Amino acid sequence: MGNIGDSIDLKRDLVLERSVELPTDVMWAAWTKAENLSHWFAPKPWTSRCSIDIKPGGAFNVTLISPTNDEVDIEGCVLEVVDGRRLVWTCGLTEGFRPAPSSDDPMSVPFTAVIELSPERDGTKYRVIARHADEESCIKHRDMGFHGGWGAALDQLIEHMKGQ
Amino acid sequence: MGNIGDSIDLKRDLVLERSVELPTDVMWAAWTKAENLSHWFAPKPWTSRCSIDIKPGGAFNVTLISPTNDEVDIEGCVLEVVDGRRLVWTCGLTEGFRPAPSSDDPMSVPFTAVIELSPERDGTKYRVIARHADEESCIKHRDMGFHGGWGAALDQLIEHMKGQ
Repeated sequence: MGNIGDSIDLKRDLVLERSVELPTDVMWAAWTKAENLSHWFAPKPWTSRCSIDIKPGGAFNVTLISPTNDEVDIEGCVLEVVDGRRLVWTCGLTEGFRPAPSSDDPMSVPFTAVIELSPERDGTKYRVIARHADEESCIKHRDMGFHGGWGAALDQLIEHMKGQ
Repeated sequence: MGNIGDSIDLKRDLVLERSVELPTDVMWAAWTKAENLSHWFAPKPWTSRCSIDIKPGGAFNVTLISPTNDEVDIEGCVLEVVDGRRLVWTCGLTEGFRPAPSSDDPMSVPFTAVIELSPERDGTKYRVIARHADEESCIKHRDMGFHGGWGAALDQLIEHMKGQ
């Protein structure tokens, strides 16, 4: 932990890794500026609005908005920031490192997201690690469509940032 | 958040503040070296052993041991380290910023501890803020004896470090 290139726990972590034809600084801006993040974070046809403060203890709050205007709030906390290379946030804590309230929602899966960016010849090696408390919540998140959802969001990120 | 001298949320935070006749570097060593922490963290007659790694994402693990050798494990994670001045850790996450498993124990109260040390003429202004998800868990922690327990532990800290 706390390093570039974290080790993976095969039973409790989900990983999405892709090579992306965008420079690391563009990928970093996509993740760390709310006006970018809100354009790609929610897989369409959902949209989102974001309030983020990219420093340890800062808020990482996203509201997902359904096509029928139902809203789902994700309240999280930024944990680690290595400029241009690594961003860690969690929905297990909220702003100011405060523990998140426990949820009655059976679809609620607390996780910590480690976003790693490494320069490659043609762009960026992009890796997301989603860390879970246990194997059960990891499987639940996988079966809820982690890879499809985060993959679709990455496609939206690329499309949005190429249009900048 | 993320600053020296955090603001207090009166409904969700518990605070212990005392002036201590020990220099800030001694107080820092008491909190950040396992061989010190294990001597004072558990109010007697309980004892403890500790495994801590004082960097963001590092483990903050303490096993409390009762007089009859029952053990209670507290697994936590270090969140923020400002050398000699500020230590933040939580039992809402475990090593590597991984969300902590939810507990069935009704006495389990996830919290984040902010330890602040400020130099004073004769020693150190010592302040602990315990942050909770909501008012209910804050009241539960208060009624479990937060102030008495952390106060007794501080007395033990002072006694141990004066004997060094």
